[in-house]
Amino acid sequence: MTTIDEALDPELKQLYTDFEAENLNPLWTQLGDLMPMAPASKAEPFVWRWSTLYPLAQRAGDLVPVGRGGERRAIALANPGLGGAPYVTPTLWAAIQYLGPKETAPEHRHSQNAFRFVVEGEGVWTVVNGDPVAMRRGDFLLTPGWNFHGHHNETDQPMAWIDGLDIPFVHYTDTAFFEFGADGVTDDATPDVSRSERLWAHPGLRPLVGLDRQTSSPIACYRWEHTDRALAEQLALEDEGHPGTAEPGHAAVRYTNPTTGGDVMPTIRAEFHRLRPGAVTRPRRDVGSTVFQVFDGEGHVSLAGVEHTVATGDMVVVPSWVEWSIGSDAGLDLFTFSDAPIVERLHLNRTLISEGA
Amino acid sequence: MTTIDEALDPELKQLYTDFEAENLNPLWTQLGDLMPMAPASKAEPFVWRWSTLYPLAQRAGDLVPVGRGGERRAIALANPGLGGAPYVTPTLWAAIQYLGPKETAPEHRHSQNAFRFVVEGEGVWTVVNGDPVAMRRGDFLLTPGWNFHGHHNETDQPMAWIDGLDIPFVHYTDTAFFEFGADGVTDDATPDVSRSERLWAHPGLRPLVGLDRQTSSPIACYRWEHTDRALAEQLALEDEGHPGTAEPGHAAVRYTNPTTGGDVMPTIRAEFHRLRPGAVTRPRRDVGSTVFQVFDGEGHVSLAGVEHTVATGDMVVVPSWVEWSIGSDAGLDLFTFSDAPIVERLHLNRTLISEGA
Amino acid sequence: MTTIDEALDPELKQLYTDFEAENLNPLWTQLGDLMPMAPASKAEPFVWRWSTLYPLAQRAGDLVPVGRGGERRAIALANPGLGGAPYVTPTLWAAIQYLGPKETAPEHRHSQNAFRFVVEGEGVWTVVNGDPVAMRRGDFLLTPGWNFHGHHNETDQPMAWIDGLDIPFVHYTDTAFFEFGADGVTDDATPDVSRSERLWAHPGLRPLVGLDRQTSSPIACYRWEHTDRALAEQLALEDEGHPGTAEPGHAAVRYTNPTTGGDVMPTIRAEFHRLRPGAVTRPRRDVGSTVFQVFDGEGHVSLAGVEHTVATGDMVVVPSWVEWSIGSDAGLDLFTFSDAPIVERLHLNRTLISEGA
Amino acid sequence: MTTIDEALDPELKQLYTDFEAENLNPLWTQLGDLMPMAPASKAEPFVWRWSTLYPLAQRAGDLVPVGRGGERRAIALANPGLGGAPYVTPTLWAAIQYLGPKETAPEHRHSQNAFRFVVEGEGVWTVVNGDPVAMRRGDFLLTPGWNFHGHHNETDQPMAWIDGLDIPFVHYTDTAFFEFGADGVTDDATPDVSRSERLWAHPGLRPLVGLDRQTSSPIACYRWEHTDRALAEQLALEDEGHPGTAEPGHAAVRYTNPTTGGDVMPTIRAEFHRLRPGAVTRPRRDVGSTVFQVFDGEGHVSLAGVEHTVATGDMVVVPSWVEWSIGSDAGLDLFTFSDAPIVERLHLNRTLISEGA
Repeated sequence: MTTIDEALDPELKQLYTDFEAENLNPLWTQLGDLMPMAPASKAEPFVWRWSTLYPLAQRAGDLVPVGRGGERRAIALANPGLGGAPYVTPTLWAAIQYLGPKETAPEHRHSQNAFRFVVEGEGVWTVVNGDPVAMRRGDFLLTPGWNFHGHHNETDQPMAWIDGLDIPFVHYTDTAFFEFGADGVTDDATPDVSRSERLWAHPGLRPLVGLDRQTSSPIACYRWEHTDRALAEQLALEDEGHPGTAEPGHAAVRYTNPTTGGDVMPTIRAEFHRLRPGAVTRPRRDVGSTVFQVFDGEGHVSLAGVEHTVATGDMVVVPSWVEWSIGSDAGLDLFTFSDAPIVERLHLNRTLISEGA
Repeated sequence: MTTIDEALDPELKQLYTDFEAENLNPLWTQLGDLMPMAPASKAEPFVWRWSTLYPLAQRAGDLVPVGRGGERRAIALANPGLGGAPYVTPTLWAAIQYLGPKETAPEHRHSQNAFRFVVEGEGVWTVVNGDPVAMRRGDFLLTPGWNFHGHHNETDQPMAWIDGLDIPFVHYTDTAFFEFGADGVTDDATPDVSRSERLWAHPGLRPLVGLDRQTSSPIACYRWEHTDRALAEQLALEDEGHPGTAEPGHAAVRYTNPTTGGDVMPTIRAEFHRLRPGAVTRPRRDVGSTVFQVFDGEGHVSLAGVEHTVATGDMVVVPSWVEWSIGSDAGLDLFTFSDAPIVERLHLNRTLISEGA
Repeated sequence: MTTIDEALDPELKQLYTDFEAENLNPLWTQLGDLMPMAPASKAEPFVWRWSTLYPLAQRAGDLVPVGRGGERRAIALANPGLGGAPYVTPTLWAAIQYLGPKETAPEHRHSQNAFRFVVEGEGVWTVVNGDPVAMRRGDFLLTPGWNFHGHHNETDQPMAWIDGLDIPFVHYTDTAFFEFGADGVTDDATPDVSRSERLWAHPGLRPLVGLDRQTSSPIACYRWEHTDRALAEQLALEDEGHPGTAEPGHAAVRYTNPTTGGDVMPTIRAEFHRLRPGAVTRPRRDVGSTVFQVFDGEGHVSLAGVEHTVATGDMVVVPSWVEWSIGSDAGLDLFTFSDAPIVERLHLNRTLISEGA
Repeated sequence: MTTIDEALDPELKQLYTDFEAENLNPLWTQLGDLMPMAPASKAEPFVWRWSTLYPLAQRAGDLVPVGRGGERRAIALANPGLGGAPYVTPTLWAAIQYLGPKETAPEHRHSQNAFRFVVEGEGVWTVVNGDPVAMRRGDFLLTPGWNFHGHHNETDQPMAWIDGLDIPFVHYTDTAFFEFGADGVTDDATPDVSRSERLWAHPGLRPLVGLDRQTSSPIACYRWEHTDRALAEQLALEDEGHPGTAEPGHAAVRYTNPTTGGDVMPTIRAEFHRLRPGAVTRPRRDVGSTVFQVFDGEGHVSLAGVEHTVATGDMVVVPSWVEWSIGSDAGLDLFTFSDAPIVERLHLNRTLISEGA
């Protein structure tokens, strides 16, 4: 196609003007942007520091009340490539949420799928459809779409955690519904474990009540002690010469929906990774976007060839098809979530793993 | 949450400034936009006229060559609510493509899923992975993701048709891959039916070769005579007092993947609807966006309470959760496509059908 | 385990007697029979001749009335290895059914899945849930479990066809239910095609009414003209140098449920095969049992190393894991059915295909 | 159909003789047996006493060596309605297996799916594909089809447990394959938990290695402490006024495949039930057959209207469509297994639950 850009003769200019007047837009002038040779996300790889996030959340705690209307004291990571929107990737939302002593975030429900991950602190209960779920360090909590939920802090200490949702995706696809619930929480009991866990968090066992296959996991909280033990066992098996780790020195578990064996929610995958001291993951690219939070230890993340040192609480975003790897001298625990279920259910997934180290 | 908007005291202002500096963005100032009570698409319901589209395509045919680089002489419907982007809805692309006498659009492949629907004309063959597929009025052709395809016009007449793709969705999710193929077409034969149809387009029968379940339909073209007959039978059954129509006076078929019974491609649903003279569909709202093209007849479309008269070739877009219905005094044939598979596979679907007429 | 059979000392004899008295049975004395190294079916490979079957059915037509109680004038193939039971294989039933001029077989329904295949004749309608289905040479008709059905002959000629059911399997698994229906047929119309075909037998198209996925195919009849055309196209494609046939000179189609792409019924697979003159299939063994009926032509079937010449109407049974192949000098059309869905859904399937010719 | 049985005139007699000579068998003379109105199993409801089973197994331990050839010292429950065959139901095998001090049962594999359930004792390890699995009271162990497995007793005490397999079904369907393995066990280590548990038995978590969906559960052993806790929690939830139990006073869990959420193996469902003191289950009939073993406590089982008192170790069989219920004055723990996956995957399942108590 020779030189149509240069060929902007008056007739062509008029044609383009007429296109615009009629709400039309030609493919040929913008093909490369619209249909690149490989994903070229506007989102950028980026690192946020917990040492920055937490004090800002604390200041918000002092200045901004929590209650009906604003609903949550959540401060979103805004990917620097996405024009200031509160989107950590085009599809995903990640925020630090902060709840002061004795505060309550009122109940609501929405079609967006949500989770919480706790990097430090305790004393807050998330109440999901009337079931109080204690939040403690290392726990991963679900509030799948259209379940009422609120949070209340029973202690004299503030607590902060991270929220992950599919807000950008649901907003983009125009699939959002929202409904207010109780102003307080519907059950202010403070049990150690939720009723959902008492029913569902037994390995390989399910109650006879409930649907055979559920859209989202019925487990409201995946406790740290289970995650920690599963990772420790993988590394122990490796020491004993047996398979189990994802890569040498790299243990990893995926949180699953026990009624399907698949991802915990239709749009979000969540995993936990542990690197032995000295381990480095093979550089890879995945279609779809991923967010990490360092849970423990220190390490270095390579993002599109740039190294970043990371420590507890730091959050990292890897946009689609950006090459990344992680290593650690002292050992590293890492929580991750991604939009992989969206990409896989629509058969758009690809992965490229480097052969070398 | 009392009056935090009014409470813009200096400390809060500073906090917001600091948020921005650190690539953070609070939820509470924008909750209503991010998480509306129901989908409130920026896309607008809109109608494009064939009487506008075709002449503009013709002018492009005179002025813009087709060939490597621009690849296709396709002019996209740009939803007036989407800021000039070539997107008919946030997820879908719809375009009129125009190929002059004896022209060839070169081969390429991409992760985007594509189809063609022919509202008039014939004489072009789309070659899909080396299989030439004749295009005739009423035919619905597939080029699912990552299949090489080109087009060539064997006649002395131009031909135009519509293209539908998931370009916006693939662009948004950063899942696009593209590869150039042959500059011409790899097989310039002009058979009446494609090899894929000869293997797969027999009702209820499949060859023993090939995977049990395929991601996309192996049928390269759904011919008008089959669609027409299926619709006519539904109305005849209704006349005889038997079920079969979607609603009184409203026949409808969905194009399916014969290896699964599901939608033809992972991201796009396509259907054909026929209204008897005098029929009106019940007003409904669906989560997800839909595009219509009138194939034959005349009718009136109600979009969010506004009536539009439509005739052959006119194209209509219904964004998510916009109420719509269609009626016709003289009878109407309508091709439709939507992003329903995206919405359904991620369990975000809802439908609200009005009880009354 | 040394010589426990020889070691029948008095104590052991007493133990075995005590086992029997207490309804117990030791594994170690019968392991080889219970758990053989490979399937060793009691069923035998066998051939029934149409020239035998039809005259016997005719004599039954003269002597045995059809009506409520006996329900059907069906004469089952009794595998010579199965002790006289009316089972062509351990899981499958195959019979010739014969209906005299103007006769009616009354309506009933049962949990057993059934089909009819017509090797000659016409003039009978099978009425399935009130939908009359014409039977003609080459047609394959379904009456899936728990659908009411009857047959009536509208002509002055008798008609015979074959029935295939999962009677032995349903009997064995104690899953049989049966219910009588109308004494005649509920709709004595004689249309050329059934309403189910008018709704469902359009390639790649489905009506919007009805469940997304149905347990059995909604197509009541797969017509010969479609089967014939699909097979002819595969051989034509082979002539043109393109893939499509199952093996060189061997075209084959599987009848499918268009709502799933899978087998027509949960327990029975049905296919149609065509051999070019001179073609021979590769010898193979499959877990599961299969029955053939020659539809047209002549050929030779090798069963466990023994050659049988077969001609139109002849029926052949291949028990599990028996090696078989088919060849034909003049060309051969073959209808087949099997219990493959049982074996595959329970993950017990294996196939061994010989490398040589 | 009037009196064809009485009408045994000479011509009809000759016809029946000719049928037999040609390996044919008419439907009309045996319809009621072949296709009953509802399942009428030849298998009978029956109870075996542990006080009978164990001493007989012990005597076998004294008289019959374990080793290559006989393979296992397993004594099968032979349903009194099944003619002495070692089948507890038409589809299922249940046996007591007994291993003396320091004995080893050699390794083999077969297409049959197998499990073990331990009602008393410990000290044996089952080695599954080289992974040693400790057996302790209340544990449920899997050896799915085609996995090598052997057993060895490390103690000076004998140990007995029950085996459940699909031997009759696999035999009936001619789908059996068998292969000998090592004469001893391939790994004689005696760990408390197996490697498979260390990888897979963490609630809601899976390793990243391994197939997404596996035919059978990768968990080699479901430990009693998890089962016990899950049941206790259901009853505690009931006490607190929350849902969770299967019926009032009746807690129940199903063992599941964590990669699918479905049954542990393709042909066998296993569950554990606990009745509070005073609880009685609602009478029900199910299509498919079930076997119980009392694990703890005492109770009474009603089978087709006949009451049986049962205590620890006793085994009960409920053939298809036999009405049953269970009650207990003092509380009862019950292990159960059934062929429900066969019945459900082939869409032959039905259940009838009585409304009253």
